Amino acid sequence: MIRRLAVVGLGLLGGSVAMAVRARALAKEIVAVGRRMAPLAAALDSGVIDHATTDLAEGLREADFILLATPVATLESLLPAVWRLAAPDAVLTDVGSTKQRLVRTMERLALGRPLAFVGGHPMAGSEQSGWAAGREDLFQGVTVILTPTGVTPEWVSGRVRDFWESLGARVVAMPPDVHDRVVAAVSHLPHLVAYALVAAVAGLEGSPLAYAARGFKDATRIAASDARVWREIFLTNREALSETLDAFRSTLAELERLLSAGDALEAELNRIRGIREGLP
Amino acid sequence: MIRRLAVVGLGLLGGSVAMAVRARALAKEIVAVGRRMAPLAAALDSGVIDHATTDLAEGLREADFILLATPVATLESLLPAVWRLAAPDAVLTDVGSTKQRLVRTMERLALGRPLAFVGGHPMAGSEQSGWAAGREDLFQGVTVILTPTGVTPEWVSGRVRDFWESLGARVVAMPPDVHDRVVAAVSHLPHLVAYALVAAVAGLEGSPLAYAARGFKDATRIAASDARVWREIFLTNREALSETLDAFRSTLAELERLLSAGDALEAELNRIRGIREGLP
Repeated sequence: MIRRLAVVGLGLLGGSVAMAVRARALAKEIVAVGRRMAPLAAALDSGVIDHATTDLAEGLREADFILLATPVATLESLLPAVWRLAAPDAVLTDVGSTKQRLVRTMERLALGRPLAFVGGHPMAGSEQSGWAAGREDLFQGVTVILTPTGVTPEWVSGRVRDFWESLGARVVAMPPDVHDRVVAAVSHLPHLVAYALVAAVAGLEGSPLAYAARGFKDATRIAASDARVWREIFLTNREALSETLDAFRSTLAELERLLSAGDALEAELNRIRGIREGLP
Repeated sequence: MIRRLAVVGLGLLGGSVAMAVRARALAKEIVAVGRRMAPLAAALDSGVIDHATTDLAEGLREADFILLATPVATLESLLPAVWRLAAPDAVLTDVGSTKQRLVRTMERLALGRPLAFVGGHPMAGSEQSGWAAGREDLFQGVTVILTPTGVTPEWVSGRVRDFWESLGARVVAMPPDVHDRVVAAVSHLPHLVAYALVAAVAGLEGSPLAYAARGFKDATRIAASDARVWREIFLTNREALSETLDAFRSTLAELERLLSAGDALEAELNRIRGIREGLP
């Protein structure tokens, strides 16, 4: 049981966590910290949170579980203040989409003031964002990746693992750099490709976009994602993203070469189809 | 009112046409032509079709409306026999995903024996295929592109337009080569890209595919499409596809360049997001 849960950033993820925690009565008290008060009013009215504040010090005071749920770049700039203001017994985690830089910053801060923390990333994205898009069951069946390192105490990973599992998530652990390569491949690459698909087709003469049907729309749904959030994700994971982009480009070139070899093309498309159908 | 509708190829599209025509009582008689009898049995049993045959001559005899609904390459090889066997008063159309080569072949055949025909393409794809995936309402709200040329009599386009509109579709007309560039952009390119995404990520070390979430799955749903069908589509539209691939590659490279320019990247992602959200 959490005494006081502090959620910093009450958007899609932070908001859904607050909803899920309240629905399951996993915390006595929930406080949300936002940049402005107005967007927090709906959360207060709904009874999902007990307190709302724009003052980080007030929000973190006496919180024994702190969830940092702002977009990645904001999160990084918040960390020094969080480290100064968190209660000494607080357990701290985050939902940042890239982990290596963030965890490195947290470990550097922990050299000055030891705090119990582990990086986390619930793989529950959506092209929607904000409190209004939140759902109490958002984490049901979702994979949450924790990124402990050699200096993370086991009990901290355990506490945060229990937290996410109690919201219905499946929790796995991997080092921050491995996490960043994984999400570069299954999340950041497809997003960049979807943005490129929309922009490329929009730029062709004859307005072909007017004829986009379900296939195009599904393939590019994620290109409707929040630009500020994705700018930060792309920028903080540029290196891993570039590697996966290279792999993607080679594969695409290989497929294009097969366009002059009918039988080999069909065999390869069949192989790929099998992989796609085998996804969990 | 159609006297006798012949559907050659009772897969997803042909089957759905038969279902829609029967449900709306638009034809007195529906006959299906297939390669093998077994898959036609279900259609006969359901009462959607009145006759089933593997003999093209028998299937086309006395049909006044002929819909060719086999995959593209099969379709091309069928055309000479269709031209020989169709009744002189038949109106002929098809659902082939690429049109330039097909229409050229039909016009060559029409020099020998004049027949009333116009190319068509209902933009109602699915990663599923076959009669079992068919739906009576598949064409509701769907765009059907007709590809008349300078030698197509207006009454033929009119008949075929009426046919599709009576199944709930929105019909537009454009020349075959324009059609092929349009579908290369909004359909063939995204399919090839989806296949490449799956293959590229599957080839990376560390099995990142195990962490694929909704974003990746939506973006690659079309990579589960039928390999034989898509091999034919890619091969018959190679030229237009290559042009759109070049445009896609340039756009992707441009986006990658913006990864070193935060503000310009966000502005561009925002612009693209707006385009994606503006899709009909």
